[in-house]
Amino acid sequence: MIITVSRQFGSGGRELGKRLADELGYDYYDKEIVTQIAKESALNEQYVNSVLEGNGFSHIALNFAHTMPVVSTVPDCATEVLVQQQKIIKAIGNKGNCVIVGRCADVILADKNPVKLFVYADDASKIKRCKERAHDGEDISDKRILKSAKAIDKGRARFCDMISPHEWDDKNAYDLLINTTGVEIKKIIPSLALFIKSLRGDN
Amino acid sequence: MIITVSRQFGSGGRELGKRLADELGYDYYDKEIVTQIAKESALNEQYVNSVLEGNGFSHIALNFAHTMPVVSTVPDCATEVLVQQQKIIKAIGNKGNCVIVGRCADVILADKNPVKLFVYADDASKIKRCKERAHDGEDISDKRILKSAKAIDKGRARFCDMISPHEWDDKNAYDLLINTTGVEIKKIIPSLALFIKSLRGDN
Repeated sequence: MIITVSRQFGSGGRELGKRLADELGYDYYDKEIVTQIAKESALNEQYVNSVLEGNGFSHIALNFAHTMPVVSTVPDCATEVLVQQQKIIKAIGNKGNCVIVGRCADVILADKNPVKLFVYADDASKIKRCKERAHDGEDISDKRILKSAKAIDKGRARFCDMISPHEWDDKNAYDLLINTTGVEIKKIIPSLALFIKSLRGDN
Repeated sequence: MIITVSRQFGSGGRELGKRLADELGYDYYDKEIVTQIAKESALNEQYVNSVLEGNGFSHIALNFAHTMPVVSTVPDCATEVLVQQQKIIKAIGNKGNCVIVGRCADVILADKNPVKLFVYADDASKIKRCKERAHDGEDISDKRILKSAKAIDKGRARFCDMISPHEWDDKNAYDLLINTTGVEIKKIIPSLALFIKSLRGDN
């Protein structure tokens, strides 16, 4: 079974994905994919990440990009990132039994019928989670957190738009959407793992 | 705990709600609410149902109806239905431990912090479910099913718009959205019940 986790920034989607992988004894992939793309493509991780977060393309490229996988208006380096990303995520998918957070893995692995989760939360909950994760002495205002969250989610949506027939946050693209507002993520993991299995008829 | 189930027509939301109530040993409310409103208001069930399905109001009434519970542009009989509905659903909510399907119970009982589910499915799945439920000899085309589903969901959305700050199918209004496409509902119930409990910190 393959589980993909798409998530709003600050919703705890990454924590949910990691804990779910641990609970199920599955492999977990998140930033590892960025590292591997960087290695395979000889581009630096920061650049690779910026492409995967939807910031490596011009609007013109995006508007013409529905004929993916590769369009000529996308800068060459960004194209290389996309090619490597597809290759790496497909290889991960072939191994199976894994949880993949972000990177449009749900779209890239559509033929493997992954269980597709979308994790979201309200603004107050995002602010709370971000502040809990902040480094000592790091001063982040509520306004700044929400501005970042909005920009990051916008980038994710833009990247998704390139390769998906659905909008990034369209419920029809997912099997299960979980609102983590007020939820202590570690407490929901054992029953979520069972529920996900049951969605694929594995009881 | 109160669980509300909003659902697209043909998604199996009613079956899910009923089975969930049975699993948890909770009371279940669906059409019972219509019957009770009819009794309390001396209106017939068919009319009560048409109001609750969003068909008892003019567009003008709907556009001005955000100042609910009662606006003068709503016909008197429909107003009576709304008043009785609020009264009955609030009484159900006060008893607790129940599953309520539809009737905007999630909005009416917002102060009770219900677990709010939204159940949906793709068109092919809706057609399949409706055909399985059809009476012997009943001839229903795919096109007719989808047309009905669309009209009924539109009515539900209109009714919800009157009393909710959210759109009817906005994920932010719910705790959990479940895509029942390809899912055998009875198989997911035991783990869904556990998962819902965990969302409220009850493990």
